[in-house]
Amino acid sequence: MEIRVVEKVLKVNDELAQAVRDRLRPLGVATVNMISAPGSGKTTLIERAVEALGAARRIQVIEGDPDTTLDAERIAATGAPVVQINTAGGCHLEANLVLRALEQLDLAPGDLLVIENVGNLVCPVSFDLGEDKRVAVVSVTEGHDKPAKYPKLFRCADLVVLNKIDLLPHVDFDVARFREYVEKLQPGVPVLDVSCRTGEGVDAWADWLRALGPADAVR
Amino acid sequence: MEIRVVEKVLKVNDELAQAVRDRLRPLGVATVNMISAPGSGKTTLIERAVEALGAARRIQVIEGDPDTTLDAERIAATGAPVVQINTAGGCHLEANLVLRALEQLDLAPGDLLVIENVGNLVCPVSFDLGEDKRVAVVSVTEGHDKPAKYPKLFRCADLVVLNKIDLLPHVDFDVARFREYVEKLQPGVPVLDVSCRTGEGVDAWADWLRALGPADAVR
Repeated sequence: MEIRVVEKVLKVNDELAQAVRDRLRPLGVATVNMISAPGSGKTTLIERAVEALGAARRIQVIEGDPDTTLDAERIAATGAPVVQINTAGGCHLEANLVLRALEQLDLAPGDLLVIENVGNLVCPVSFDLGEDKRVAVVSVTEGHDKPAKYPKLFRCADLVVLNKIDLLPHVDFDVARFREYVEKLQPGVPVLDVSCRTGEGVDAWADWLRALGPADAVR
Repeated sequence: MEIRVVEKVLKVNDELAQAVRDRLRPLGVATVNMISAPGSGKTTLIERAVEALGAARRIQVIEGDPDTTLDAERIAATGAPVVQINTAGGCHLEANLVLRALEQLDLAPGDLLVIENVGNLVCPVSFDLGEDKRVAVVSVTEGHDKPAKYPKLFRCADLVVLNKIDLLPHVDFDVARFREYVEKLQPGVPVLDVSCRTGEGVDAWADWLRALGPADAVR
């Protein structure tokens, strides 16, 4: 009974995710879904991307959180258009929420839509939001074992960002082991080492986003 | 429809959580449920507690993870009895899993049972595991805004551990703001500053656990 209902929820979600795609692809808007544990630095990565891409490539943002508008306020301060979705305690975003958020954005051809999911390494993975690319973010303070413990995310990620690498001297994080775990789960997936604090790797992150053309809106 | 089923799941869980209590309280075993984001340092806090309490107070451990036995292996290395629950991708522990794990442990009067939940700030909060006390762990790398964004956990926590404080000089974490957020959500809840790396605060954490007598098995 429970499982039947969950399957129905996922089926409805898939249909609504397709509705998101049907709206965004003809527009030539590429969409990215960022998934990580709470506090891995997703919002800061988006702030840096908005700065790096500048006027040449407009980023618009959907922020997901169980509560508060703290992240949306940070993004708004960069000048990027942003909509906050509060899930009222819910543990992930769903496509119906994204569809409704799209009503609040004025997306134009060539825009990049970045969706910051609720901080959670498990539940968001099961819900297609109509995105073209999925980005997994792990900060080095979380431990190199996270891909092994939360394998589903790393099997479906198009990019893995290893964040806060400026903290490597202060934590017991084995970068080689981390990369081995990721490579085992999904051979060939790119892994970017980034520190938003020192700026290391921010260019590579911005380049990856910049390279997402309307063509990537079909995978 | 969906909500009815979820309520039924929670109701069944509550009954099984009571079954956990009915088994452990007559034994005089106090039970702690540790909840945090992935990589906040729950396992290391348990390792340090086992060392600090030593033979005077035996800790037994239930480890919850979506996959792998990595955490259970770490706990086993301390000599503490441990059972791993793999949720096969599931985002939280439930009381039925704890009940089954109890079959694998030989709990004796005065033992302390520590349950490490799946790393997730949202879903575990809704599921009573039959614990006597709930501990919320946040590491300073996650940002001082976490209580505001994930308020449910902080409203029901009996103790908040602010972990990895050795990293404070390297991150933008406002301890006063963090404590204000927590205090607003649940006035008077104790907040311990801990670093398992330097050992700071580990005594206070061990003392808090040590003080959990069989009397605390009735709240």
